[in-house]
Amino acid sequence: MNKKLYFTVGPSELYPTVAQHVQSALDEKVGVISHRGKQFEAIYKNANDGIRTLLNIPSDFHIFFLSSATEIWERIIENCVEHTSFHCVNGSFSKRFSEFSTELGKKAFIEKADFGKGFYPDKINVPAEAEIICLTYNETSSGVSMPVEDINKFREKNKEALIFVDAVSALPYPKLDFSKIDSTFFSVQKCFGLPAGLGVWIVNQRCMDKANSLLKKGKSIGTYHTLPSLLSKGKDNQTPETPNVWNIYLLSKVVEDFNKKGVDTIRKETELKAKMLYDYIESSQNFSFAVEDVRLRSFTTIVANTKISAADINKKLEPFDMAIGSGYSSYKDTQVRISNFPANSVEQMETLVKKMKELFN
Amino acid sequence: MNKKLYFTVGPSELYPTVAQHVQSALDEKVGVISHRGKQFEAIYKNANDGIRTLLNIPSDFHIFFLSSATEIWERIIENCVEHTSFHCVNGSFSKRFSEFSTELGKKAFIEKADFGKGFYPDKINVPAEAEIICLTYNETSSGVSMPVEDINKFREKNKEALIFVDAVSALPYPKLDFSKIDSTFFSVQKCFGLPAGLGVWIVNQRCMDKANSLLKKGKSIGTYHTLPSLLSKGKDNQTPETPNVWNIYLLSKVVEDFNKKGVDTIRKETELKAKMLYDYIESSQNFSFAVEDVRLRSFTTIVANTKISAADINKKLEPFDMAIGSGYSSYKDTQVRISNFPANSVEQMETLVKKMKELFN
Repeated sequence: MNKKLYFTVGPSELYPTVAQHVQSALDEKVGVISHRGKQFEAIYKNANDGIRTLLNIPSDFHIFFLSSATEIWERIIENCVEHTSFHCVNGSFSKRFSEFSTELGKKAFIEKADFGKGFYPDKINVPAEAEIICLTYNETSSGVSMPVEDINKFREKNKEALIFVDAVSALPYPKLDFSKIDSTFFSVQKCFGLPAGLGVWIVNQRCMDKANSLLKKGKSIGTYHTLPSLLSKGKDNQTPETPNVWNIYLLSKVVEDFNKKGVDTIRKETELKAKMLYDYIESSQNFSFAVEDVRLRSFTTIVANTKISAADINKKLEPFDMAIGSGYSSYKDTQVRISNFPANSVEQMETLVKKMKELFN
Repeated sequence: MNKKLYFTVGPSELYPTVAQHVQSALDEKVGVISHRGKQFEAIYKNANDGIRTLLNIPSDFHIFFLSSATEIWERIIENCVEHTSFHCVNGSFSKRFSEFSTELGKKAFIEKADFGKGFYPDKINVPAEAEIICLTYNETSSGVSMPVEDINKFREKNKEALIFVDAVSALPYPKLDFSKIDSTFFSVQKCFGLPAGLGVWIVNQRCMDKANSLLKKGKSIGTYHTLPSLLSKGKDNQTPETPNVWNIYLLSKVVEDFNKKGVDTIRKETELKAKMLYDYIESSQNFSFAVEDVRLRSFTTIVANTKISAADINKKLEPFDMAIGSGYSSYKDTQVRISNFPANSVEQMETLVKKMKELFN
């Protein structure tokens, strides 16, 4: 039995209700039912409606279930780009997204910021030919965020381009303004506290129109996971392929739990826990802020420079059944990353901070 | 609590050990661990080694994990076809696979047989320009199979083309000859008795070479799920994206169970249960064989013409906690489909046949 509490940024701690929902899934034979039957349609609708309520998504946006956020990157390029995309790149994940565009034979304009740095939209000029603008709300590799008010500035200067917001390790925390963006997406193993294997893609009619216009021009936009194919089945609360039914069910249940708790409470707790961590980092002799600009520090992925490697920290935390994340890739030994997701409770975060203070000053 | 036994062809009954493996997954925090860590690599390797043993896969074949067999159809065309594919089409699933080729801008040659009919390889001439040959071992929609000895005939006349065998609702039953094919694939919610959300793709070096040659020519073959990308991570027992870790774990455990039981026993039981069902169909007043040619009748998806609709049959089976599948799409009322998967035990099949004899003659 593994009793450790994981403060890692992905995959991450399961939301505390997941075990009981897994039991219900077994009892109700959710892994057995047909994905073309009424029981599945009800599960799909429940997940869809719940997400719409939680994130306050307008009725003219569609919500689709895919296999990962990585897949969604690919589908965005396939469905919505004929020639040119634009990407704000400041870490490994935003970089990888931009590479998908070139690997699919498109031209990717890149606005680059160094690792640990962010963007200042007033200074950014998106080329007129860019069909889509790809922004990352939360760079999971570096802990740099792009505040919602900054995201909203892109629409003003770029009326035509479709705006995509990668909100993978952030939603439901950010209060996105759906009148200023065309699409957002997340994967369930981060802030929704579920096992990995499901990505959720939220798109408006402008994205649908773009995909349909490419189709009309005779361009290939993919096969079963094109936007028209997703919508054609989605209308009936179904998916084109046999999906990860089990995870759609678990998501529907955790979203029910989130809605019962209230997204405002989740957001307030997220800010409270982030403050605990950042206050500790500020006061510590061994840690320092990895993201200089306080406005751009993530609320959900807390990253700090460290004098002690995550491996050594975790050795000392082990007897207390806790673990934090190491820095990303080459920052493995010089940074730590701590998840601040809804599954990490206020009490648990207090315990972690207290223990880290004791052990590492 | 749903206590019904499902004899449906997909999704299907969970293998009886799945509930206990789900509990272990929760206990071991399989939904929480990093997909870049040692614990995941061990799970990946265990699944991979187990499948290799179970299906007697030669060491020069690679085994990759994707999200569904539907996704694998798409990746086959993207990775292994520059211009032209060839498909034996005799039902909805083989037809859909061929459509993926045209939707991706390739030319698909189609050898067609009517619904409920199969193929006679001696009579088939594959055009020389076809780069891949797509065969379906088991058409889940109609219950028509292509025996392994028939599959093996294609290689003789077609040395160059890559041969792909869709074995979705059949493996581990068919004893495929890997010296005569280049690739096969299945999804876990059929004969492996798991929740849906994972497809397994088995490919040899010739498929890898083809993908690499397309890349060298400057063709796009996709992004994260290209064969080179899958291999690059697969070498380290990892996947390019955050995968369905939970399902890879469950698969590794069920494959362990299969290997303990022995694939020969599973195959013998499959034949025994199929005989029970076909004997009953032959003797019944209400059912008749949907597949005329006895050689082409599936061992895992038993399809019969029926005078009583599956809906009416299931109403009468309901008090006995059993359900069978309806015919596919427009055959909904005139055919029934009964799963004969490893999760459907010999005892359960005896009970089903006995009850059907009582109720429907």
